[in-house]
Amino acid sequence: MRVDIGNALAAVADPGIAESGLEELDDRVATAHERIAVGRSDGEFGYAALNLPDRTDPEEITDAVADFTDAEAVMTVGIGGSALGASTVSAATGPHEIDHYALDNVDPAHAREVLEEVSLEDAVVHVVSRSGTTAETLANFLVVRDAMETAGVDWIERTIVTTGREGPLRRLASERGLPTLSVPAGVPGRFAALSPVGLVPAALQGVDVEAVLAGGQRTAETLGPSLYECPAYAYGAVAYALAGRGARSAVMMPYAERLEPFAEWFAQLWAESLGKDGRGQTPMRAIGATDQHSQLQLYRAGPRDKLVTLLRPRERTDRAIPEPRTDELAYLGDTTLGGLLDAEFEATEASLAAAGRPTVRIEIDRLDPASVGELLYEMEAACVLAGELFGVETFTQPAVEWGKRAARGLLEDSGTTAEAAAVADKTRLVVED
Amino acid sequence: MRVDIGNALAAVADPGIAESGLEELDDRVATAHERIAVGRSDGEFGYAALNLPDRTDPEEITDAVADFTDAEAVMTVGIGGSALGASTVSAATGPHEIDHYALDNVDPAHAREVLEEVSLEDAVVHVVSRSGTTAETLANFLVVRDAMETAGVDWIERTIVTTGREGPLRRLASERGLPTLSVPAGVPGRFAALSPVGLVPAALQGVDVEAVLAGGQRTAETLGPSLYECPAYAYGAVAYALAGRGARSAVMMPYAERLEPFAEWFAQLWAESLGKDGRGQTPMRAIGATDQHSQLQLYRAGPRDKLVTLLRPRERTDRAIPEPRTDELAYLGDTTLGGLLDAEFEATEASLAAAGRPTVRIEIDRLDPASVGELLYEMEAACVLAGELFGVETFTQPAVEWGKRAARGLLEDSGTTAEAAAVADKTRLVVED
Repeated sequence: MRVDIGNALAAVADPGIAESGLEELDDRVATAHERIAVGRSDGEFGYAALNLPDRTDPEEITDAVADFTDAEAVMTVGIGGSALGASTVSAATGPHEIDHYALDNVDPAHAREVLEEVSLEDAVVHVVSRSGTTAETLANFLVVRDAMETAGVDWIERTIVTTGREGPLRRLASERGLPTLSVPAGVPGRFAALSPVGLVPAALQGVDVEAVLAGGQRTAETLGPSLYECPAYAYGAVAYALAGRGARSAVMMPYAERLEPFAEWFAQLWAESLGKDGRGQTPMRAIGATDQHSQLQLYRAGPRDKLVTLLRPRERTDRAIPEPRTDELAYLGDTTLGGLLDAEFEATEASLAAAGRPTVRIEIDRLDPASVGELLYEMEAACVLAGELFGVETFTQPAVEWGKRAARGLLEDSGTTAEAAAVADKTRLVVED
Repeated sequence: MRVDIGNALAAVADPGIAESGLEELDDRVATAHERIAVGRSDGEFGYAALNLPDRTDPEEITDAVADFTDAEAVMTVGIGGSALGASTVSAATGPHEIDHYALDNVDPAHAREVLEEVSLEDAVVHVVSRSGTTAETLANFLVVRDAMETAGVDWIERTIVTTGREGPLRRLASERGLPTLSVPAGVPGRFAALSPVGLVPAALQGVDVEAVLAGGQRTAETLGPSLYECPAYAYGAVAYALAGRGARSAVMMPYAERLEPFAEWFAQLWAESLGKDGRGQTPMRAIGATDQHSQLQLYRAGPRDKLVTLLRPRERTDRAIPEPRTDELAYLGDTTLGGLLDAEFEATEASLAAAGRPTVRIEIDRLDPASVGELLYEMEAACVLAGELFGVETFTQPAVEWGKRAARGLLEDSGTTAEAAAVADKTRLVVED
């Protein structure tokens, strides 16, 4: 991976980092790296995520999917970190003959559409929940199971489970003899893409998951004490430093449609890891070139509160643009779709620089399993570093518990939890037409 | 539509609006409404958008699509405002027998996938560009035309054009006798959803576009001088007032998968209209309940710089959750997917209120053509009002021109534009592994 932070310097951008600020930052990176290295070597909660490429056994995954060579579709039933990694790896290594669907919401309309579209007898369901009690995931799994029974499909023959050591899902899997993999211990879901959580669907689609892990491994070896030599830390440190100088938002803007789920995965990683104690940086997903026609006006001329990260693969399988046969558009006839996309990438970067808005450029070689493993690992390492610099508890997400208790209380009976009672007390000021 | 601003008041949230602030705001709404009413009645640039439901002729649209009753897929070739409205209306009124695809990027991998998936002889292509020179749109159109020719399909028989009064696309359409509709004059693309720009694909899918327009019309009649009586203005005024009190970001979070494109459409509307002169509010798209497992930690415990808008239809076609047969999950067996989704909606709203974070609740009756027309119109009116309050030129997007000149210069020859020359001058600080 290649990270270019030139356009985040104070010489170009405001907010921007002065030369001296960069030196100071590098000292802090060295300290943070020490801390991270200790965490990794002790297998501490969360830090253990950065050991996953070594710890995850690709054979265990390929064995678990070996009986499903007939699969024509894969359905991930999971939510948040139990779905985004799988969607990311699957999309970024595509296209695949076997489609991947994520049932990651409890919208009845969406469930109906997916279940109508997929031929259930040819589908494999991958159910993912560490606790085995995630409401949305279990509800969807019950719905899918029921739909399979109705369609005369034996769900027991079509289901793979990835879960923690205990809980209802583990018990069910063991009672029914389902192929079962483990959510890695000590690793929050959003950091678990490089484990069965993120790799099972891709494996079912025929992706070389060993190559994905090897990409992560190779990157893991490059983590070191200086941002000048470690792209992951360069990214994390610059994002942190700019946040402190006013770049409250971090736009992740890949120029490749297949990286759209990656931008969502990044948004979870960044939001849930860093957004606590009033601190953090707000991630935003965008897609190039499309969002140039939607968001660029704001990025370039709105408040100076954003870091825009422009991401692209350096090689693409391209497609020529046919001759337009009209002078006004002749310039298009000499290029390709990829050539146009790359020109827009560079033009957007220069456009933001000319307006003094900070950007970082990230490039990977191409969209293949190894580069995708590398990219995911680099961003995880960047996030762990940023967490150290922000001084937050990177690996927890305590603020989501209140809502879970409230929702459960509402479903059982409003009186059962204080949180559910608070729902009924809502302040209203309704305007209606 | 129903807008509840109770949780945006200072009694609940920080940032929040005090009672006195609301009164003051209402005076400014009255003045802004006057300005908007004059703009509408004079058909001024931009303000004319709020007359579209009356001005758009549904028959012209149904006539243009009448010859395509055999269509099995619709492809929109457009970008930004020329694609997002169509995707929004199509998705929100779905599901449809006829699929809708948007070719709204110039990623060669994406173009290849769409062209492989769609049966070109059964597809209708809707090409949309006001100028008729939008690089991405014309490049994709050339690629699609070429793919049709290669597949032995006469593209002239399968293409509908929506464009401005002149330009290469208008000329081509007239030379070839293609069904042609007009991008409404005096209305920027992002405000043109309630015109052929946004309605042709839905019409091809069999949506009652007259009902969509009627929903907009009904809402147009309710615009009035007080935020207490006009939900669109209540929303726009509260968003503006909170932005001034620190809510620099506006999260649009529908609890319905079919409104995901709506959230993207809103993001363009808000970003491009308000993001200028260092002002504006940064829109972010999210989806409930999924993003509770991704973004909620940040919304609840990160910086106090967000307004979260929770949007839902009040009625859904629901689906029961089958009995879980395990005590820990028994509470799920008494409800439905929609019941769970609604409980999570209310729980999330209460969770943010309990943490003193401002939210606004928007409810529409259901996902049908009339409610969708209403929703789009309300948000456009909200945005026009917010533009008046921010004091920006709501209907222009000058900051995107620099990048367009740079990209074109790069494709022709780096020397041809000053902007392209600036690209070559980029400041670099590369970290690589």
